[in-house]
Amino acid sequence: MVTEVLESNYKVEKLYATNSFIIKNKSKFKNNIILSEVTREDIDKASLMKNPQNSIALCALPAQKELPEIIDSDLCIFLDEIQDPGNLGTIIRICDWFGIEHLFCSPETADMFNPKVIQSTMGSFCRVNVYSTAFEPVIKLASKSEVTVLGTFLDGENIYTQKLPSRMLLVMGNEGNGISAEIEKMIEKRIKIPEFNKNTISAESLNVSVATAIICAEVKRQTHFLDLFEMK
Amino acid sequence: MVTEVLESNYKVEKLYATNSFIIKNKSKFKNNIILSEVTREDIDKASLMKNPQNSIALCALPAQKELPEIIDSDLCIFLDEIQDPGNLGTIIRICDWFGIEHLFCSPETADMFNPKVIQSTMGSFCRVNVYSTAFEPVIKLASKSEVTVLGTFLDGENIYTQKLPSRMLLVMGNEGNGISAEIEKMIEKRIKIPEFNKNTISAESLNVSVATAIICAEVKRQTHFLDLFEMK
Repeated sequence: MVTEVLESNYKVEKLYATNSFIIKNKSKFKNNIILSEVTREDIDKASLMKNPQNSIALCALPAQKELPEIIDSDLCIFLDEIQDPGNLGTIIRICDWFGIEHLFCSPETADMFNPKVIQSTMGSFCRVNVYSTAFEPVIKLASKSEVTVLGTFLDGENIYTQKLPSRMLLVMGNEGNGISAEIEKMIEKRIKIPEFNKNTISAESLNVSVATAIICAEVKRQTHFLDLFEMK
Repeated sequence: MVTEVLESNYKVEKLYATNSFIIKNKSKFKNNIILSEVTREDIDKASLMKNPQNSIALCALPAQKELPEIIDSDLCIFLDEIQDPGNLGTIIRICDWFGIEHLFCSPETADMFNPKVIQSTMGSFCRVNVYSTAFEPVIKLASKSEVTVLGTFLDGENIYTQKLPSRMLLVMGNEGNGISAEIEKMIEKRIKIPEFNKNTISAESLNVSVATAIICAEVKRQTHFLDLFEMK
């Protein structure tokens, strides 16, 4: 992650690294970097991780990102109060994998700079635009951009038996309570991942990052590969 | 989770519960249960969780599950050294959701009774058959059952542009190293989740539980909904 941060737009204020890290990555250091050569033991003491690597970067917190003027992509996501840092980090990594540029997070969602979030992004936090914002400006932006607002609900339509809209804002709700009542009112299309387990007692739900990934995969499958098939 | 355990095959040796839990769930108690009424404070002290609920069940560890005689389902999974308890727990929950009956775990995979595993299953550990086993007996069973062995590799075939086999054993590899070289030799079909991000620098991989979910979803989509479509 440190090498990814060095190559990103983040401002690395200080870099603490072992001799071997410095030799290997020297070419990535920008001119104004403040570098301290330290030992592995120093890093073990300073790091929040159980098995830290051979460097620690101290970065300036970037300014809050302004919302984009317009949404110009097939899929973007709004997180309504995702509390678990591991879930947020995993969702940022999913956005990076699927090329989802914009991730909007309600003010109640976990802080993206929480160390557990950063760690579970596996470096993806350098590449995804994460905005902390209320829902209202986002829904205005969606409407201006002709983007359909989707949310997952138990009574939603099966994502596998329909052609999804070509431009979507996907709302994912809180781990325990789902999408809040206020935001639910503004959802234009209710969808769901169908249950496949025929036993009467089975998992009631999927983890929110897992559900996000399954929906993103289906959206991208439809965008990229649906023309290989024809609906009967 | 305690109420799910009470209704499962697990043997609950002791149940520590608050008065309100006892009143609400009395009908689920089996005759031979040893019950202690405790206070919320007792539970806070004894629980490994930050925000425990109003009961703790002490269960007997069940005997190691014997492998089934035959695999008689469209999809089962072998985990090759999944180390993170959260990943294992999430995969057990995914299996429950998708109705995947058999989950085989290499001896190096995290212990399914690790508290973090149990917690992230959200009760699904009561319903999925989890086996701790080497790969060899599983591949013999797969071959006997006419099940194709699949693994995910960077050079695998795109899961979205082919009809997947009708009976599959999916092998998922270690978080850092993927599928081990020895097991790789026995994989019959190499598959992959395609990358959708066109930027040269993007996430190198997905979290293993996320990848498992995306593949399970595609397998189940093809089994249940593909006949709605026709390949051009």
